[in-house]
Amino acid sequence: MPYFDVASAAPLHPVAREALLASLDEGWADPARLHREGRRARMLLDAAREAAAEAVGCRADELVFTPSGTQAVHSGISGVLAGRRRAGRRLVRSAVEHSCVLHAAQVHAADGGSVAVVGCDRSGRVAADRFAAELTPDTALAALQSANHEVGTVQPVAEVAEACAAAGVPLLVDAAQSLPWGPVAGPWSVLAGSAHKWGGPPGVGLLAVRKGTRFAPRGPVDEREAGRAPGFENIPAIVAAAASLRAVRAEAAAEAGRLRGLVARLRERVAAVVPDVEVVGDPERRLPHLVTFSCLYVDGEALLHGLDRAGFSVSSGSSCTSSTLTPSHVLKAMGVLSEGNVRVSLPCGTGADEVERFLEVLPGAVREVRAALGAPGAVAAPAGGEAGSVVVDALGARCPVPVIELAKAVERVPVGATVTVRSDDEVAALDIPAWCWTQGQEYLGERPLEGERGAAYVVRRRV
Amino acid sequence: MPYFDVASAAPLHPVAREALLASLDEGWADPARLHREGRRARMLLDAAREAAAEAVGCRADELVFTPSGTQAVHSGISGVLAGRRRAGRRLVRSAVEHSCVLHAAQVHAADGGSVAVVGCDRSGRVAADRFAAELTPDTALAALQSANHEVGTVQPVAEVAEACAAAGVPLLVDAAQSLPWGPVAGPWSVLAGSAHKWGGPPGVGLLAVRKGTRFAPRGPVDEREAGRAPGFENIPAIVAAAASLRAVRAEAAAEAGRLRGLVARLRERVAAVVPDVEVVGDPERRLPHLVTFSCLYVDGEALLHGLDRAGFSVSSGSSCTSSTLTPSHVLKAMGVLSEGNVRVSLPCGTGADEVERFLEVLPGAVREVRAALGAPGAVAAPAGGEAGSVVVDALGARCPVPVIELAKAVERVPVGATVTVRSDDEVAALDIPAWCWTQGQEYLGERPLEGERGAAYVVRRRV
Repeated sequence: MPYFDVASAAPLHPVAREALLASLDEGWADPARLHREGRRARMLLDAAREAAAEAVGCRADELVFTPSGTQAVHSGISGVLAGRRRAGRRLVRSAVEHSCVLHAAQVHAADGGSVAVVGCDRSGRVAADRFAAELTPDTALAALQSANHEVGTVQPVAEVAEACAAAGVPLLVDAAQSLPWGPVAGPWSVLAGSAHKWGGPPGVGLLAVRKGTRFAPRGPVDEREAGRAPGFENIPAIVAAAASLRAVRAEAAAEAGRLRGLVARLRERVAAVVPDVEVVGDPERRLPHLVTFSCLYVDGEALLHGLDRAGFSVSSGSSCTSSTLTPSHVLKAMGVLSEGNVRVSLPCGTGADEVERFLEVLPGAVREVRAALGAPGAVAAPAGGEAGSVVVDALGARCPVPVIELAKAVERVPVGATVTVRSDDEVAALDIPAWCWTQGQEYLGERPLEGERGAAYVVRRRV
Repeated sequence: MPYFDVASAAPLHPVAREALLASLDEGWADPARLHREGRRARMLLDAAREAAAEAVGCRADELVFTPSGTQAVHSGISGVLAGRRRAGRRLVRSAVEHSCVLHAAQVHAADGGSVAVVGCDRSGRVAADRFAAELTPDTALAALQSANHEVGTVQPVAEVAEACAAAGVPLLVDAAQSLPWGPVAGPWSVLAGSAHKWGGPPGVGLLAVRKGTRFAPRGPVDEREAGRAPGFENIPAIVAAAASLRAVRAEAAAEAGRLRGLVARLRERVAAVVPDVEVVGDPERRLPHLVTFSCLYVDGEALLHGLDRAGFSVSSGSSCTSSTLTPSHVLKAMGVLSEGNVRVSLPCGTGADEVERFLEVLPGAVREVRAALGAPGAVAAPAGGEAGSVVVDALGARCPVPVIELAKAVERVPVGATVTVRSDDEVAALDIPAWCWTQGQEYLGERPLEGERGAAYVVRRRV
């Protein structure tokens, strides 16, 4: 049963398991205590810190362990913003950061700070020069991920770090997705990572703050972890996390090459075997193990369940898989289709046969969902085209139904005529323009509905 | 090698170990995901929440898991203070709360809030009526521990909870030390606990917020744990923590009775076999497994090392064991001696023979430290008493030296004469009055030194 969602969480690495078991016996005591159990715990903690710092590329006294990657990012952002309050209250971040960066930025904005968001291109890549242009003198902190967690696009972090260093602005790098593959290059100031992304146990994040970075921890602190992560240290998990990072790194170069081949195969074949699909993310500058695509006229949740029944565990950035009905802000920033979105992230050791089996199963799973929704291509087109333009009322319908109704209506109108879709689904604002882009139709724009929630989206048939 | 520091951290309970191993295989995935691994993780998390809520005495939807007991307290305090900001900005806490409560209160005060501190008696017990008298209409939150972590004194939580309910003030109970022994009685509003105190793994705290309590989480939040504990859930550790709490509770009544007998034996015999010792904490209303005493003329760190060499792991609230040179705020609030302080906290299963062995070893260990420091009783008293009052210069000397010099000087002056000790050790302000109290001498007070840090402490010889 292939698990293709390692970008969410990786199963425990055998090395991590072994280290965890050993240190449950040796490292459960309070490392602040003077007795032998405390001293033993302290030694394990110190050794884990040395190992993790070496893998990150910083000094041991620059690195603390946090209870999660999320908390590492939260503390990193709030600590630098507070430490550099005199410099200014501006935070610069990319549009495609992980939600934990967005949440920390929201708190900063609610507290009266300003947040500048740097957009990306259609591949999800942030331009280094556009990012650098936002580094005004009052910028307290800049945040850029090393690689995107949803589409795998690698960001120009080294270049941006140089620009930040030149501007005197510390750069925080969320390295959660890339850290298993190697250290982050460039003169970054703060770095965050998460152990369960590299086969470590849950409950361990890491936060590196390079010497010379002004840092003032926020909220209540204690004497643990240099005052940067309050609460009793989770030493068995920390030891396991450090051991796992070393083990994963030892295999990284060989495994990256192998997975890159499998992902290339997936990118090529998905586009070939699934009609109306958009494979997203930068085709070259990308994480080795991750590929994302969106399927028109597909309900993401239904597709995930279909793939799950067929034995494949994947994830999705579609709104129709989340409780919030808001599509992934990453896909939104890229301007790509969000409906029927599937993220495949391969664990180390994935076999070519598993990938081939996925490619065999996928077209049928997509077809099934489209048929159930009555999507275009799945049902016979209605006889005869209608003359002139039409209005489609999709109020109350949720993704992907508005786009399906649009596509069916476009088939019925002559070239040159328009289809207006009335929809109160927030996702339509993203998916209708994206549908036009992929289908070669012309998106004319949207206007608010009178007296109702939602908007009217106008499309002209071109082909 | 007996480990008598279970109040700092307990070794992993066998049930916790078993549950942890099983859920490392079953519960590593992201419970927010729709695939089978995610659903399995979600089921484990839900079941652990049910079990923990039953043990706490709340509804499952009132309980979230945090990365530590410390973070549960921090979030609990900041969440209620923010949620009840309209009611007022006053926080009432006892003087003997755990440092994590003090840290959260400091942040509140730095943010412009007010903090009222309710003192305790010499046994460490807070009077319910004194606490209730502080519940003014502008009180947003009150915090009282269920039992003290340093001296074992149980607090009148049920009574205080009733008073808080009557005043319309939510009560937060730090139940870290008592939760293994049973649920907290009374209409409390918020409760915090820590799994590694009951044989669960590190990395798990719990925060219960009863329905109807206004609560607004502070800082960045995400969708996990009802928005009250951001970051990836540590499900294997959570499952182990819940299993361990049930297992410990099943043994609690029988084990409490047994340990209570051992602690009574310790309290009685320590006072008998060690000269110049003060056994602290309420003799009756106390945790079953914990006893604390302070030894005059003893350096706490040296005594801990001596006991460690003899095979016993204990902890201490003395300043001479910490990096800060500040004595335990708990001992300070109680007004008891802090020097040579030892806390013995017995794990479940401790044998009577281990306790007897400790009692055999202790007097020699104390004697050895006193001899090395040239303490009174350890060295021959100087021949002949000096007439009249004397001044002892102990500037630059650290605990327990100022008290040792005081005791030696008192032996040399006639009854009725005074000894003035000049000391710049912060602990002297606590330990010199406490020494007078235990020795039947009269403490006349202190005055600042002219042009120097420190004070002159004046004692009249009575006996």
